[in-house]
Amino acid sequence: MTDESVVRRLRDALGDRVDTRTDVLEDARADKSGHASAGVPLAIVHAASVADVQATMRIATETRTPVVTRGAGTGLAGGANAGRGEIVLSTLGMARILEVRPDDLLAVVEPGILNADLNDALAEHGVWWAPDPASRAIATVGGNIATGAGGLLCAKYGVVRDAVLGVDLVLADGRLVHLGHRSVKGVTGLDLTSLVIGSEGILGVIVGATLKLRRLVPGAVHTIAATFADVRTAAAASAAVTASGAQPAIMELMDAASLAAVHALLELDPPTPGAAQLTIQTDGPAAAAEAKAIAAVLHETGGAVALAADEVEGEHLLSIRRSMHPAMETLGMTLIEDVAVPRSALPAMFDEIARIEREYGIVIPTVAHAGDGNLHPNFVFEGPDVPPHIWDAADALFRAALALGGTLTGEHGIGVLKRRWLADELGDDQWTLQRDIARVFDPLGLLNPGKVFAP
Amino acid sequence: MTDESVVRRLRDALGDRVDTRTDVLEDARADKSGHASAGVPLAIVHAASVADVQATMRIATETRTPVVTRGAGTGLAGGANAGRGEIVLSTLGMARILEVRPDDLLAVVEPGILNADLNDALAEHGVWWAPDPASRAIATVGGNIATGAGGLLCAKYGVVRDAVLGVDLVLADGRLVHLGHRSVKGVTGLDLTSLVIGSEGILGVIVGATLKLRRLVPGAVHTIAATFADVRTAAAASAAVTASGAQPAIMELMDAASLAAVHALLELDPPTPGAAQLTIQTDGPAAAAEAKAIAAVLHETGGAVALAADEVEGEHLLSIRRSMHPAMETLGMTLIEDVAVPRSALPAMFDEIARIEREYGIVIPTVAHAGDGNLHPNFVFEGPDVPPHIWDAADALFRAALALGGTLTGEHGIGVLKRRWLADELGDDQWTLQRDIARVFDPLGLLNPGKVFAP
Repeated sequence: MTDESVVRRLRDALGDRVDTRTDVLEDARADKSGHASAGVPLAIVHAASVADVQATMRIATETRTPVVTRGAGTGLAGGANAGRGEIVLSTLGMARILEVRPDDLLAVVEPGILNADLNDALAEHGVWWAPDPASRAIATVGGNIATGAGGLLCAKYGVVRDAVLGVDLVLADGRLVHLGHRSVKGVTGLDLTSLVIGSEGILGVIVGATLKLRRLVPGAVHTIAATFADVRTAAAASAAVTASGAQPAIMELMDAASLAAVHALLELDPPTPGAAQLTIQTDGPAAAAEAKAIAAVLHETGGAVALAADEVEGEHLLSIRRSMHPAMETLGMTLIEDVAVPRSALPAMFDEIARIEREYGIVIPTVAHAGDGNLHPNFVFEGPDVPPHIWDAADALFRAALALGGTLTGEHGIGVLKRRWLADELGDDQWTLQRDIARVFDPLGLLNPGKVFAP
Repeated sequence: MTDESVVRRLRDALGDRVDTRTDVLEDARADKSGHASAGVPLAIVHAASVADVQATMRIATETRTPVVTRGAGTGLAGGANAGRGEIVLSTLGMARILEVRPDDLLAVVEPGILNADLNDALAEHGVWWAPDPASRAIATVGGNIATGAGGLLCAKYGVVRDAVLGVDLVLADGRLVHLGHRSVKGVTGLDLTSLVIGSEGILGVIVGATLKLRRLVPGAVHTIAATFADVRTAAAASAAVTASGAQPAIMELMDAASLAAVHALLELDPPTPGAAQLTIQTDGPAAAAEAKAIAAVLHETGGAVALAADEVEGEHLLSIRRSMHPAMETLGMTLIEDVAVPRSALPAMFDEIARIEREYGIVIPTVAHAGDGNLHPNFVFEGPDVPPHIWDAADALFRAALALGGTLTGEHGIGVLKRRWLADELGDDQWTLQRDIARVFDPLGLLNPGKVFAP
C-alpha cells in the first residue's frame, strides 16, 4: 500500500482531521530532546474523539501502517518522534474534562488536556492532580501517563503511577478496552493500568483516564535555600534531610555549572564558584515547623541557609531551579539525562559525575530531584546530533547509576535515545519478556515501532 | 509422566524438602475461604532458597506438571488451593529479611516472612511496611504481593501496589528475573512489578521483594466510635467524613448483624437492634484535632459519638471490628465477599445489600473499610460447599457493585471463587488480553492453572 493510498483512506474516513501540511509534519519529527527522526511522517490525524482514534487504528492495521501517538511533543527521549511512512495520531485535541468528583477524589479526562489546565480547573473543586513535571504548563495528561512522568513534588506526593485509577486504551486493531476502576481499591485480574503507565505508546492509544486526586494542601508553603561549598556536600545534606524523617514537598539540588548558567540567563550576580544549592519547600499544617527543622539539618551539614520571608520570595528562590531548561538552551544543544539512584547513593553518584567530567574533559551541569534520588545531568554539545564522545560519557553515566543500584530513567522514559541500554538494566530475559508482552497488545508491531525495544 | 516419577525427580533434586505426608497435602487443598480443591496434590516442596524454587520449576516444566505456589494459605478466594496432579511450592520457609535501609526507606525480604514479623523487625529501625490486611499476623509478604492485599489502613497509607519497588520472580521454566528497582522513581521499560502485584501466582513465583517503607508515625492514635440508627446512615456519615477532607488512618463500618455476632462472641451486652457502627482512628501530629473534627461530622450526621479516653480504650473499640472473622466462624461456613465501590456509592451499595437480603431471604452481615469503599459482605451457609442460592445472591451482589462503578474484589483476588464473574467486569476483549499476557510468562499453563482465568 502506498503512502498516498493510506492518506486517501484516512481522508475518506476522517476528512479534514487528516493534515499533511509540511511544517506540521516536520514538527512531528522531534520532541523537546531535540532529537529528530530520519524522515517525515505521511500524515497527522488530529483526533477529536475516541471514534477518530479507533478509525485511524483500524486503517493502520488494515494497511499495516505504523502509528506514532503524540500529545504536546514535550518528551525528552524521542519517544513520540515520527518518521518516514508513519501516521502521527495526535490526541492533543481531545482535551475535555469529562467528570470531576471531589467526594470520590477522582476525575475522568481526555488525554490531550494540559497538566496545568487540568489543575486550574480542579482547584475550583478544592482538589489537584499531583504529578508535577517541569513541563506541566505545556505537557498533556496523556503524555504524563505514557511516560510515567514524575516531577518536583514526587517524593511527598508520588508519581503518575500513584495517581491513575484507570485508562481507556484503543488497541492496535481499533478495539477499545477500559482498564482499571473507579474505586480506590481493586485487584480484579492483572493490573493493566499500571502496565500502560510508562509504556511510551507501544501498547495502545490512551484515549481517557480516571485520575486519583488529592485535596488541595491548606496553608502557606515555606521555602529554604541553602548554599554549600561543593555539590557533594549539598548531596550529603539532602540525604541527611531525608534521613532526619522530614518530608519536604520539594527538594531540588543544583550544581555549580547549573547555577552559573541560570544566574547568567536571569542576569543575577554570579554565584560563588564551585558552590551548589539546595532549594527546599515544605507545605501543609506543619510547614513552618518542618522548615525550621530542615534548616537546622542543613546548617549542621555545612550549609549557608536562608528562609524565604514569604511565598513571593519563596517562588523567586524556586524560579532559579525552574529556569534550568531555558538556561541550558542558551549553552547549545543539550542531552538531558535522567538517572535515578537510591537516595543514600546521591553523593556517590555526584562523585561518578565528577569522574566522568574529568575522564571525558566535559562539564555536565546537573540538577537533581534530591528528595527522590533522580538526577538530570545535562550533556551540552554543538548540534544537531549527539556526538559519539558525548554518548560515550552518557554510557559511563548509565553504568555508574546501575552499579549504584539505580536506573537509566527516573521519569523521561527510554524512547529512542536510551533503547541501546535497556537490556543492560533489564537483563536479556526480562527484555524479551517485555517485548513479548508488547506483542500481545500489538502483534503486527504497528505502535511506535523502534521505540523502547530497539529492533 | 506418572505422579510417582515426578515425585522421584523432585526428591532426587531436593531431597527431604519434598514432603508427601497425607495431612500436609490435605491442608494444601484449602485456604481460609474454606473452599477446597477436588483432589489431593502430589507433593509439597518446602523451598528454602531461590535455587530450590528454580529446581522445582525446571522439573515442573520438563515433566509438564502444574505448580501451585503457596505461602501461609490465608487467602480468601481459593487462589492457593492445590489439587490432583499438582506440585505445591511452599515459600513459607524463605522468611529472611535480607536488608533494611531506613535512610532509603526500603527493605529487601524473602516472600515467606509474615507481615507482622516483618513490622516487628522494622520497628527497631523506626520504619514500617504499610499494608495491613486483617490477616497480618498470619499472612506472608509474598502472599500479600500475590493478592495485592489491602487492609484497614489503606485509605491513608495505600495498598500493596503502593508499597513495592521490585520483585524477584522465578518464571515457569526456572529462569530468575529481577523486576523493578531500588530507587523511588524508575520508568525503565514496562512496569512488570505492578503486573506481578495481584497476579495470584499465574505469572511466576515471587522469591524476593524490595519493599517501600514508611517512617513510623509519631504520637498517639485517637479512636472514635459512633453508633447510628441504621447502616445507611452510618455509610452516609462515613462518606461525609471523607468529603469533609479529614483523612482517618482507619474508618471501619459494621452493620447490625455483624455487631450482634461479635457482641455474642465477646459476651458483650447485645447492641441496639438495627444499629450500625463506625470505628475511626486518627494518627500523626494532628491526630487529636482531626478526631475532634471528625466527631463533629459524625454528630451532625446523626451519630452517637464516643471518643476513647486513651489508646487502650481505643484498641478495645477496634477489637470489636477485629473479631469479625472469628464471629462469622461461629455462625457456620462463610463466603466472605470483597466488592469495592467509589466512596460516595457506599450508601447505595448498602441499599443493594438490603435488597438482596430481602430477595433471597438471607441475612448478609457486612463490614466495610469505609474510608476506601471496600465492603466485606458475609454469606453464611451450612457447609461444606457454597449452595446455589448463595451463589445467586453473590451474583446479584457483584452485579450491583459493577453497576455502581465498583469492582468484584478490592483486596482478596479472583482465585477460583470469582473467576466466573471476571469477564463481566473486564469485558471479553480485556479478559483475552490478560490471559494472553499470562501465557507470555507461562506458555505451558503450568502456574496455578484454573485460577483467575477459568478454562
